[in-house]
Amino acid sequence: MEKIAIVGVGNTKIGEWYENSLRGLTDIAISKAIESANIDPKEIESTFIGSMSSGIFNQQEHISALIGPHSGVNAPALRVESACASGSQALRVAMMAISAGYYDSALVVGVEKMTDLIDIGDVTTALGTASDSSWELGVGATFPALFALMMRAHMHKYGSTLEEFASVAVKNHDNGSLNPDAQFRRKITMDTAMKSRIIADPIRLFDCSPVSDGAAAVIVTKESLAKKYTDDPIYITGTGAGTDHIALHQRPDITTMESTKRAVKTAFDMAKITTKDVDFIEVHDCFTIAEVITLEDIGFCKKGQGGKFSLEGKTALNSKISVNPSGGLKSKGHPVGATGIYQVIEVFHQLRNEAGKRQVTNNNVGVTHNIGGSGATCVVNVFSRGE
Amino acid sequence: MEKIAIVGVGNTKIGEWYENSLRGLTDIAISKAIESANIDPKEIESTFIGSMSSGIFNQQEHISALIGPHSGVNAPALRVESACASGSQALRVAMMAISAGYYDSALVVGVEKMTDLIDIGDVTTALGTASDSSWELGVGATFPALFALMMRAHMHKYGSTLEEFASVAVKNHDNGSLNPDAQFRRKITMDTAMKSRIIADPIRLFDCSPVSDGAAAVIVTKESLAKKYTDDPIYITGTGAGTDHIALHQRPDITTMESTKRAVKTAFDMAKITTKDVDFIEVHDCFTIAEVITLEDIGFCKKGQGGKFSLEGKTALNSKISVNPSGGLKSKGHPVGATGIYQVIEVFHQLRNEAGKRQVTNNNVGVTHNIGGSGATCVVNVFSRGE
Repeated sequence: MEKIAIVGVGNTKIGEWYENSLRGLTDIAISKAIESANIDPKEIESTFIGSMSSGIFNQQEHISALIGPHSGVNAPALRVESACASGSQALRVAMMAISAGYYDSALVVGVEKMTDLIDIGDVTTALGTASDSSWELGVGATFPALFALMMRAHMHKYGSTLEEFASVAVKNHDNGSLNPDAQFRRKITMDTAMKSRIIADPIRLFDCSPVSDGAAAVIVTKESLAKKYTDDPIYITGTGAGTDHIALHQRPDITTMESTKRAVKTAFDMAKITTKDVDFIEVHDCFTIAEVITLEDIGFCKKGQGGKFSLEGKTALNSKISVNPSGGLKSKGHPVGATGIYQVIEVFHQLRNEAGKRQVTNNNVGVTHNIGGSGATCVVNVFSRGE
Repeated sequence: MEKIAIVGVGNTKIGEWYENSLRGLTDIAISKAIESANIDPKEIESTFIGSMSSGIFNQQEHISALIGPHSGVNAPALRVESACASGSQALRVAMMAISAGYYDSALVVGVEKMTDLIDIGDVTTALGTASDSSWELGVGATFPALFALMMRAHMHKYGSTLEEFASVAVKNHDNGSLNPDAQFRRKITMDTAMKSRIIADPIRLFDCSPVSDGAAAVIVTKESLAKKYTDDPIYITGTGAGTDHIALHQRPDITTMESTKRAVKTAFDMAKITTKDVDFIEVHDCFTIAEVITLEDIGFCKKGQGGKFSLEGKTALNSKISVNPSGGLKSKGHPVGATGIYQVIEVFHQLRNEAGKRQVTNNNVGVTHNIGGSGATCVVNVFSRGE
């Protein structure tokens, strides 16, 4: 199968964009991506949009028809949704469409405009629709509560400590302070993280990613056409997706994510790599516990040792494995349906040595890891420069 | 490219399912489809779900993880959304996934549970999120109002009459009376249709499709594997999609749908057919004006003559062209994100001579036509028995 190449990217800074709209944010991201790829919008043959909940956040479904034509890309379009993994799923569908021969090129957009709701409490409820609405959200278990259950179980089973989890936040803020597009560009101390207020015990404020607005876009084509647009295309060498039961009570072990294991196996097999070949990775740290579990599930360390691995500094920029050089969801921000595309854009820049002060030095193989809900969906993609 | 085959189908009767849930309805449809295809659920390698607005209707996003594993199909899953064309888009993505070599088989589900909202007025607002929320729904233009504008423009430009539009409803109720799965299994008279109350002038009650619950599922695989599951697979010989501006005011002519023309051209070219080869078609008659415009845009009659064509009986069962043998959205019902899959299932049964009293006699080539919003999205698929 011919590889898929990324030939251009564009995004907004992540933040609280009260002065802009879903439509306005995507216009910015798409126009930047088009400029980056130096492509005539008329040459873009299809559009795939990842968004978790524009219906609830913005009272707007059918954004595939809203966004594409408005930005000058009047191609067949559809939206893909798998909660916070929507962006990565949209990229996968674009890859399928091109590999199947339906189109030669695609615009892939991730967008979430989360600040349109009047009450911030409504945002937590809206996000909760990615859990089992009847058996989790409906009985008061919002996402901080669900990840608190996972964190408590992990502490109980493996003896992981609050200090270990806090180290994830500190490291991601260190990286995010170097990222001009990050929502929070400031370092924090272990003390700040560990003394921050409790959200859902044992999860504290700095264990949580924020509520964010953002839009991100990439333009993809097949390998044989890539050099038409850029001298430095980035190739997707492997992709995998996994799905598991949506509710925590349906899973035999909530200290691991089966979906991650399945997605990693498929993606790494396709890319013909093992965990040892990964130079850097953007992982889905919606809460610090999620990054810890992911480090273990991908196999960067032994099961139960993810927190210790982080506290020892082995995930810092240019250490053993650079994890979340962008700052991750924690510091860069988490516009949910857009996050998967922001991860891809970070990997794109890192592989092209365009990441400025947060540039990783070993940068031959980059990976993205994007989950939906409390881990019922996972998408993993592998990227390289190609030779 | 190897053709994609449908090897099994299942669905609920369409109606108001106050006593069941989104999860329960999909369980019924999926279990019937699995039984129909005589397939081991473990052999199903992927799941694609079409739903327009489970977030608003059911406070449940991420239904890809909710539905698949619950029904025993624990495969990578994602949701596709293009308003009322979500079902057909999900089928297209499944086709892409199989043709690209990602999977050998897929479960494709369409579902909408619209009666969970407390106030029926809320349903109209929820549906309105498929229009341009800022410039249409936000200023009071619900879908009956938008299609009323199109109908009025058509009457003004072409002299089409209320009687012509009413004839679409009467014909579809005639067909629906023969369909055991239809929401409304009763014939209506021209008098009933034309004297029904005004909803948004000139649209009357019987120009409108109803609010409906329903779930429908099909199992697809590649041609070379189809005979493993059934002696009578149905093949998708062509598929096309088109996207246009979401808002009516952005389009130069609201008496035609560019998206339909684009989708038809792509699908018919791929299937190597012309309009004359179509034996029967399921078209998207969310309002009677939509069926009239579609008859013209596909080319079954001259532009402006769709209403006359209908009034003359040329779209009746086993007349010139059998249009909506199922009863269409008008009589069979319109569970929005599921409608595209219900259309496919009707074509499947018609091509296999399983359609009982509504069986079309010329049944070599069947087509589905499914739109989203006021026509900003369109998907057209072409089906045949193969040789």
